[in-house]
Amino acid sequence: MSDEREKVELEEESLLAALSSQNMDEFREIFLEQHPYDQAKLFVKLEEEDRNTVYKYLSPEEMAAVFENIEDDDDQYEMFLSEMDPTFAAHMLGQMYADDAVDVLNELDKDQVASYLTIMDDEAAEEIRELLHYEEYTAGSIMTTEYISIHANQTLHSAMQILKNEAPNAETIYYIYVIDEDKKLAGVISLRDLIINEPDTMISEVMNERVYTVSVAEDQEEVARKMKDYNFLALPVIDFRGHLLGIITVDDIVDVIDEEASDDYSKLAAISDVDSNDRGPFSAAKKRLPWLIILLFLGMFTASLIGRFEETLDKVAILAVFIPLIAGMAGNTGTQALAVAVRRIAVGDAQEQSTFKMVLREAGTGLITGTICGIVVTLVVFVWQGDIFLGILVGISILATLTVATIAGAFIPLIMHRLKVDPAVASGPFITTINDIISILIYFGMATLFMQYLI
Amino acid sequence: MSDEREKVELEEESLLAALSSQNMDEFREIFLEQHPYDQAKLFVKLEEEDRNTVYKYLSPEEMAAVFENIEDDDDQYEMFLSEMDPTFAAHMLGQMYADDAVDVLNELDKDQVASYLTIMDDEAAEEIRELLHYEEYTAGSIMTTEYISIHANQTLHSAMQILKNEAPNAETIYYIYVIDEDKKLAGVISLRDLIINEPDTMISEVMNERVYTVSVAEDQEEVARKMKDYNFLALPVIDFRGHLLGIITVDDIVDVIDEEASDDYSKLAAISDVDSNDRGPFSAAKKRLPWLIILLFLGMFTASLIGRFEETLDKVAILAVFIPLIAGMAGNTGTQALAVAVRRIAVGDAQEQSTFKMVLREAGTGLITGTICGIVVTLVVFVWQGDIFLGILVGISILATLTVATIAGAFIPLIMHRLKVDPAVASGPFITTINDIISILIYFGMATLFMQYLI
Repeated sequence: MSDEREKVELEEESLLAALSSQNMDEFREIFLEQHPYDQAKLFVKLEEEDRNTVYKYLSPEEMAAVFENIEDDDDQYEMFLSEMDPTFAAHMLGQMYADDAVDVLNELDKDQVASYLTIMDDEAAEEIRELLHYEEYTAGSIMTTEYISIHANQTLHSAMQILKNEAPNAETIYYIYVIDEDKKLAGVISLRDLIINEPDTMISEVMNERVYTVSVAEDQEEVARKMKDYNFLALPVIDFRGHLLGIITVDDIVDVIDEEASDDYSKLAAISDVDSNDRGPFSAAKKRLPWLIILLFLGMFTASLIGRFEETLDKVAILAVFIPLIAGMAGNTGTQALAVAVRRIAVGDAQEQSTFKMVLREAGTGLITGTICGIVVTLVVFVWQGDIFLGILVGISILATLTVATIAGAFIPLIMHRLKVDPAVASGPFITTINDIISILIYFGMATLFMQYLI
Repeated sequence: MSDEREKVELEEESLLAALSSQNMDEFREIFLEQHPYDQAKLFVKLEEEDRNTVYKYLSPEEMAAVFENIEDDDDQYEMFLSEMDPTFAAHMLGQMYADDAVDVLNELDKDQVASYLTIMDDEAAEEIRELLHYEEYTAGSIMTTEYISIHANQTLHSAMQILKNEAPNAETIYYIYVIDEDKKLAGVISLRDLIINEPDTMISEVMNERVYTVSVAEDQEEVARKMKDYNFLALPVIDFRGHLLGIITVDDIVDVIDEEASDDYSKLAAISDVDSNDRGPFSAAKKRLPWLIILLFLGMFTASLIGRFEETLDKVAILAVFIPLIAGMAGNTGTQALAVAVRRIAVGDAQEQSTFKMVLREAGTGLITGTICGIVVTLVVFVWQGDIFLGILVGISILATLTVATIAGAFIPLIMHRLKVDPAVASGPFITTINDIISILIYFGMATLFMQYLI
């Protein structure tokens, strides 16, 4: 592996030299040997001048492979396309796998999309137009129409012939989908089955009629879970009548799983997006500030709540000592409950159980952890401050706070999920701040009530 | 999709009925039609009595497919195996894909492993023994030895014959690896290439000599990243001399990506493990309590710090009002910086940049967010409390706190990474508590220093 990386780095130097010395043959020889991922990695690092040379050196088809491998979050598609000759760009888009071309076109204005589609050859344009309709994050938006389909009343031998013809353009050849006259999905046959069975066998004899499918409007997370659970390399996408519309391949699903996980993670930490491309502190600050400002105002609200108990505080200053402890514990336990709830929703567990049951379970968990932490705190405060009433006050506050905070941590994302809002937006710091407020109210409320025992 | 799920649910009822009425034919007919994932899902839900019936109804080979699809985190392998006849269990393990069998055996005592390997047929036992050597979370631990390899001096036609023979046992047939006499990896040919080229072509003419490989000791996260970037369906695993040892298939990598993401996520929230199988509040509480107790004592330490400033607090009770705000903001910003650092380490970005540069960048981010939040707070507190000195005190505390907390959030995981400790163990609540302490020291330190302006 490190060998491979060293090799790619050496080649990069030669490629840069070939570009600056205008040596097209040398460039093509090295570049076309590379994996498209490495090609793309080099391409995005080039200066505009060198990129313009690359457009001259490569065919639209060769450039398409590079474009397919530029990472989604680069956001530079528009700039690259504007640098190209429009005809070149349109042909390149037409040569890309339709799902990847759609990803690129989704970043552009409608006018630009329309003009590229006009120049492109009709078949490719038609495929892309169909895919452009589907909403983001659905099965339709990540599927491709470049699959191989056959009819059941043929032998494996003739299926193999079809496969040989279509293989160069299909995104996967490892599953062949069997459709009826009505274009409805009737079965699936894997290339493995095609190879190990006798060539004169009929497809209908070996095909698997039990096809796992996803509906075109299904959430991409749901598709990912299915592909992961069943270890498929591709899944067919159908409409509500069972017509085959396209397929989703495992490489796209790997990206989805990675994206969604990173998304949940970012939200738990209250950052909009962990973008490894934001090099400077200014762009990082810009991304984090919106969250911080919101949390700042929520924090001011917490402060104003404590302000209402100033009289209590004036009389018993020691109370202030335990504010961060109680608020902190509420935040911690709420974050735990939140993370469990978000993960349970993500793995589909939430569908199988009622909200009520899950919240009840969390309430139980909160009560148990609260009781144990409460007893520990009461003892520690008693030993430290020599005041059993203060100990009991802090202990009971911890008990009540942990119970309520655990319920809130679980309940808020579940409710959001039912309301079809992504539960992960209820980020850790957000839940923490909510729980700060709850804990302050409990703590100072109780302190004010039982003031006589504390003075 | 929902059709499919309904169908599986209906079948489950029939299967349970068949088990209780001891109808073996009926059971086998329905069960063997199901996808192994659904089979496994049903199996783990059964009572012991029904499981014992299943062992009687299925062959070791059929049971192997079920076992391969039991989720790793189920931890029940040992119980299931102990219920089976040892010979049946050994044969079943021998029939499983070697990498999956190793996952199961890794959960058992060495004695048990040895006894199963003794009963098993020699070839399977040998393969498993080799794989058992590799350390967890390395490429070696997730690879399988069931790949297809050929020599270069043959035609595609004869390669196809080999493939047909080996297809039933190989984990993937979509890549065929070309090895030299020394068993060194010399090239790779995809089944696609095999099919679209003429049968009398020599393998050496069409094979790709540029094979992307991973070393056997490589971290599984590194393998996952490579597979994701290059969109491979399988990656060959080699030793330091370039000998082919095994392959890693994309379905295992999908699990790795999911596991690692879930792991990072859990740690950010300070929960040991999000296990969707822990149904009861007691087991949930048991998992969360260790973290809560640690955080409780860290919180008590924070409280004792504030206790040292009791005199200051006694004089200016209003100071207490802003404790949760300042501590909370420190926690939030620290969690953001932590999450960014952990993700950057996870995507391999940390290797490319020096620790110093990354921390410097975070310091800049902290300074910018701190300045802006500090100004906002100063103004709000001034308007609200009518005290410009209090405003400036809280504002400067926020500025200092955010800067330090951001640096701490980034620096701690980076240092852990350099020390080869998983940076994700520096969980959100842990960083939050550290930053609570820092913020309290800054705030009360400054308040005590500038006391004369506040009274």
